Order: sequence, then structure tokens, then C-alpha cells
Amino acid sequence: MLVLSKRIQFSAAHRLHNPALSEDENRRLFGECNHPHGHGHNYEVEVMVEGRPDPVTGMVMNLRTLREILEREVLARTHYKSLDEAGGLLDGRLSTTENLAIAIWDAVRPHVQPARLHLVRVKESENNVVEYTGPELA
Amino acid sequence: MLVLSKRIQFSAAHRLHNPALSEDENRRLFGECNHPHGHGHNYEVEVMVEGRPDPVTGMVMNLRTLREILEREVLARTHYKSLDEAGGLLDGRLSTTENLAIAIWDAVRPHVQPARLHLVRVKESENNVVEYTGPELA
Amino acid sequence: MLVLSKRIQFSAAHRLHNPALSEDENRRLFGECNHPHGHGHNYEVEVMVEGRPDPVTGMVMNLRTLREILEREVLARTHYKSLDEAGGLLDGRLSTTENLAIAIWDAVRPHVQPARLHLVRVKESENNVVEYTGPELA
Amino acid sequence: MLVLSKRIQFSAAHRLHNPALSEDENRRLFGECNHPHGHGHNYEVEVMVEGRPDPVTGMVMNLRTLREILEREVLARTHYKSLDEAGGLLDGRLSTTENLAIAIWDAVRPHVQPARLHLVRVKESENNVVEYTGPELA
Amino acid sequence: MLVLSKRIQFSAAHRLHNPALSEDENRRLFGECNHPHGHGHNYEVEVMVEGRPDPVTGMVMNLRTLREILEREVLARTHYKSLDEAGGLLDGRLSTTENLAIAIWDAVRPHVQPARLHLVRVKESENNVVEYTGPELA
Amino acid sequence: MLVLSKRIQFSAAHRLHNPALSEDENRRLFGECNHPHGHGHNYEVEVMVEGRPDPVTGMVMNLRTLREILEREVLARTHYKSLDEAGGLLDGRLSTTENLAIAIWDAVRPHVQPARLHLVRVKESENNVVEYTGPELA
Repeated sequence: MLVLSKRIQFSAAHRLHNPALSEDENRRLFGECNHPHGHGHNYEVEVMVEGRPDPVTGMVMNLRTLREILEREVLARTHYKSLDEAGGLLDGRLSTTENLAIAIWDAVRPHVQPARLHLVRVKESENNVVEYTGPELA
Repeated sequence: MLVLSKRIQFSAAHRLHNPALSEDENRRLFGECNHPHGHGHNYEVEVMVEGRPDPVTGMVMNLRTLREILEREVLARTHYKSLDEAGGLLDGRLSTTENLAIAIWDAVRPHVQPARLHLVRVKESENNVVEYTGPELA
Repeated sequence: MLVLSKRIQFSAAHRLHNPALSEDENRRLFGECNHPHGHGHNYEVEVMVEGRPDPVTGMVMNLRTLREILEREVLARTHYKSLDEAGGLLDGRLSTTENLAIAIWDAVRPHVQPARLHLVRVKESENNVVEYTGPELA
Repeated sequence: MLVLSKRIQFSAAHRLHNPALSEDENRRLFGECNHPHGHGHNYEVEVMVEGRPDPVTGMVMNLRTLREILEREVLARTHYKSLDEAGGLLDGRLSTTENLAIAIWDAVRPHVQPARLHLVRVKESENNVVEYTGPELA
Repeated sequence: MLVLSKRIQFSAAHRLHNPALSEDENRRLFGECNHPHGHGHNYEVEVMVEGRPDPVTGMVMNLRTLREILEREVLARTHYKSLDEAGGLLDGRLSTTENLAIAIWDAVRPHVQPARLHLVRVKESENNVVEYTGPELA
Repeated sequence: MLVLSKRIQFSAAHRLHNPALSEDENRRLFGECNHPHGHGHNYEVEVMVEGRPDPVTGMVMNLRTLREILEREVLARTHYKSLDEAGGLLDGRLSTTENLAIAIWDAVRPHVQPARLHLVRVKESENNVVEYTGPELA
């Protein structure tokens, strides 16, 4: 199997705060990440697609096409923005790195055919990374 | 001359917006960095001090001491916060990387004696860096 | 499946030397790594746990909790130490990167529940990495 | 399962050009990568082998041996060369990163026994990576 | 003094070959870098300008403007090209990293005013870097 | 001025311990770095030389020559060794990063002529760096 990966980066603000919980409970669960004015990160995202190389082009997928999909579906909705904005990529879900990886998977998956989405990796900071390989099959 | 450098990192939100200017002028000058909900970065800061090694310890300055100064003077006022908060490190100045480097210089300089502050480097993102070596002497 | 990863680093000395073998045999097998006074590395360790995000917190596991486990079970027994010390994490086993990855797996696995340990990656130097995914099931 | 990984780097020129297609078709498919004078990269390659640690050495495979295999089978045929040279590692195949990963797999696989080749990762640039895990079994 | 730095990258082919010398002399002086089919690199370039922050914008220079200068003066003439092409940035000079740094300095310097060009750093590979701070004053 | 830089790496053990001081004083001054069995690092060293490019080769100095000097004068005396060994590069001086930078300067300086040694940078770990530019002139 061949897996092709494209890395992008975006700079976004966010705050971990669940409105269904009390202020105290939010502080206890999320600690500094619940700070009222928010904080931010340079997120690094790697999107991996799998497939066979085309016999004419020798490519699983044209990396320019993959880059354009990521610009439209991810960067345009996150770069220089807040992840907690209404109508954004997370659309009201808690902006944990886990939920962000799932949201990127859902936004990108329909557009990479005939290649298949393989893995989404989100690096929030030098030491914290999440990987998502899609929902489990029934 | 010997220069000793300590790197720290913090994750902060910010927005470039000069309240003395109109909305249009802010958008024109700062572009995406003026987005109303702000964005954020993983800032990397290197603080360099210069001096001679102590004959007993072989050190210009104990790196634990330098780390403690940076935790108290920089990290406690920036990590998981917004750079635009009232009373923060920038205290109302525009949160450009240039101003951030100057503010870190001013906050750290009085505490590193007898070593001398040599350079403050602030890396806002993979491609953007500012270095400050202090005010010009008259 | 969601995989959450935390990176830590420690600086340790070690020497590859099997006391069951002759000096010559040790030199032949381990080369420079058998040098009598030892050498050392800045080890980078990534510990990955897998699970589902909690519906209230949006997290597979709180990264502060994972960090505390790694500080207690790994860093306290390796950072600024020799991997070959009696009673250390390796407890007398040869301090190859392979054995170190297995020892970290065994030390961390009981503490991450209800998440499951997924992979331990140990980077000994820029070019040398070991990954361990646990013992094979019968 | 234990996986041991060695990273190497080489600097090579290449050009994407399929001689079975017209000039126009080549430009349309490969864009800037079809530029007539070629371009080049610092390629980073990670070769991963899997196995069990030897009870005497604690190693899956001696990293010096793996390094020597990669020097002979990969570096000697690519470093400071063009990937499109006749008789080179790619031997006339289009020099996409996908085909390069397959060619490295085929060149290295026979030499790592009794360990098994696990994965070949080729990083063409900071944002573009290909991984290959071998041909699918019938 | 404040120094603002922008990093760019380009992927180019090149060959070290001085046509005024014999084939033997070229091989002796340049070794593998004289290989007839050329090789290539992912070059990393940092361009640093110095100045004072504008009191209205808090910036030494708008990084978008600096990026545009570098795209036009450097990337358009090097990315996905050969450094040895006629009419290129080096215009017939030997494509050493030293000459490349000087050529980038000369191409960028007239466009950054009122800021002053401070330093050009060219990283040819992980271990090889050149820095240029302009011609010595008489 | 042109500055040419070569990066090398070595893996060494060391311990901070001044035999002229008591055990207690050593522990107080050096903390964990005084641990009796020592620890270690992957040291990254950048050696920078300055000069003018040769009109025939376009080079300040041949990087192969600089690499050979560093292998002989630095790597052969540090890689896979302890910095505290008798007769080593530090020859009994305390193995602080400051003293290591000075020792590398003294070992390399006589060999780079007609280029001049410009700066020695030693990165002990991701966050700790020392730079040395030679003894002050009288």
C-alpha cells in the first residue's frame, strides 16, 4: 500500500469551555486551557491518503490537488481564526485536538476519491499530537 | 565572549488591532491578523545572556536560575493567555512580534545580572522571527 | 480510532556491555557503544494511547494526567541518570533502544486505563528510532 | 512487535517527464516539476525493519549493518546524482516520490533478513511524504 | 536594534563546474558536487531586515510585503529550476552556497527600504549553512 | 563578510562535579547534573568560519576539509565517549557547555586558516545553547 501525505499549518485561537458545565467544573476539567480570553497554537496537520500509483503519472494523487482541497476545506476555515467561532470547522463542538482531527477527517474525506483517506494527524504543540483513522466500522 | 541561551515556548492568542484607527484602516494594515475573533501561535522564545564563565562552576549563569526568571517574568504572563489582555506583558501595546520581543527584553533584563542580556529572539511561526538586541545607546 | 500522543525527553548515559560475554566479544558486537566510560543521549519518547473521546471533555485522556504518569514512571527513573544503574528502569537489562522501549511500555501500560497503550516510540538520536506496540498475543 | 528505523538523507536532482506523452500533456500533468532543466531535493528516507530482539545483543538488527545496506543500496545510487540517470535506482521509471519509495523497498528488502522490511518513508520536502509497506499479498 | 526575518524554501538542481578548468581539476575541486548530471537541494533561505518599529503598526516592515519581494526576486527564479540556467539568479556564476547568498543579497537589497537588509542565511542541507552580511565598506 | 557553517553531532556522557568542592556543595551548585553515575546528551555543534570566496572555487573553504578537521579534532575525541575522561577534549576541566564550546574553539582554530574561526555554537539539548566567539582582545 502507498500512502501520500501533505502537511499544512494554521494559526488559530481557541478555548476549552463546555457551556453545559459550571465555571468551576470547566476550570477543574480544562485547567489553563479554560482561561477566559483563550490562547492559541500553530497547528500542524498531516493528511494522508492511500491508493495505487497511476500508471501514467506515477502518482497516488496529484499533490497540488490535495493541497487545494486542504486550502479550501481546512485552511480557509481555520487560519488566522478562532476554532470556537460559530459556523467554523468545529461548529460548536469543543475545540480539543481530538475533535479537530475528527472534523478535518469529515471535511476532507469526500474530496479525495478515488484515493481513500488514511489518517489525519494534528500536532497542537511540540509535545502533543492526535491521530485519527476514521470511525470504526460496524 | 560567551553567550548562553535558554529556549521557552508559550501558546497565546492575539489580534492585531490599533484602536486609534478605523476598522477599514486596521483591515488594510493588518489583513488576516485583524480578524475580530483573533488567532494564536505557539511562540518560541530564546533569551541569550552574555558573560564570562565563573571559575568555580564553569557557567556564565545557572540555567535553572535563567529558567526560573523566564517562567516568572514571561511564561506566567503569556502561556495559555491572550497577549492583548489588560495588565499582560504587552500592557496595551499592539501585539506584533516586534513589540513582544521588546517587552520580553524589558521584563527580563533587570534580573539576569551580573550577566548581561544579549539578544531576545521570538519565533512566531516556522517562517517569521524577530530578534532584539536592546535600545540603541545615545 | 483516536490516538493521543505525548512527547517527553530525557538525558541519560549508557553503555552497551553484556557481562555474560568476553571483552572482545562485547567490542565486536557493540563497537563504539561498548566504550568503557559510556556515552549518552537526549532521548525523545512518544507514548501513544488509544480510545474514544469522552462526550463531556472531548478528550481520549487528559494530557496533564498522561504527562504526570510519564514524569513518575519514566522521567524520574531516567532523566540525568545512567540507564545502566541498578534498580533503574531497565533493571540490569542491556540498555539498547529496543529494551528501553519495552521497559517504558511495561512501566506505563498499567496506568493509562481506561485508555489503552498503543505505541511507544524511542528516538535515541536524529537517525535511530525504535517503535514497540506490545507483546504479540498468543 | 519491535520496529527499528534508520534515517538517511541524499541530495538528488530529478524531473517529472513521461516520454510517452506530449510536451503539453507533461506540462499539464506535472506542472513546475516538468521544468526542462530539472530541480532537486534533500530527500530524507526512513527504512523500518521489524523483528524480535536477539537475546544476546538486545537488538532487532545491528544499526551499523542496516546503515551499510542503505549506503550501498540507496546512497551510492542517489546521493549527489540525478534520479533520472540511466542505470540508477529508478532505472527509467518516473521519479515520483511514490516510485522512489517502491524502488528503495525493492532494493533493500532482500538484505535485511532475518528481520523483515516494515515500511519505507520518503520525505521529499518539509510538506510532502510518501510511505510504502510493500506489495499487497494475493 | 530590531531584526525581522522571513524564511522561504525552494527546490533546485545544480552542479559545481567551472568551465575555465579541466574535467580533472573540476573533479578534484568539487568532488561529488561535480557529477555530470547534477544533483539538488531543498534550500532554506532566511532574509533578515533591520529597522525601527513604525509607531502606528508596531512593525519594522510588513511581512506580507517582504514575502512578496522574496517570491518575485528569489522564488520565481529558483523554485523548481536549476541554479545553473542561463539568465537565472546566479547568471553564470558558480552555484556554490556562498555565491547563492551573495546573489540573493544583491537581488533583495534594493527592495526593502526604508528597512535595511541585515543578513541572508542559506541552508543548503541539514549540516551546511552560509551567512552573508553584505560587502565590506571601504 | 561571508560565514560558512558546518554542523556535527556527537553522543557523549558527562557529569558536573568539581573535585575542589564538597559533595554537598557540588549537589547544591549542579543539582541533577551532579548525579554520581552521570548522564549524557546528543550534542549538536556548529562551527562557523569567515572569509572571502575563492575566485576559482566560489568557496570560503571546502566543506569536506572543514568536515575532516571536525572529525579529527572534535568527533574522534568525544563521540561515544565521556567528556570527563582523562586526556579527552576537556582534559580535566568541568564539562559545562561553556567549557566545551571554548575547548572546541581552541582545538579547531589553528586548522582553518586562511579562513578565520568566527563562532562555535554548542546545543546541549533542545532548549540549552552556548555560543563562543573567542577570547577578548587586549
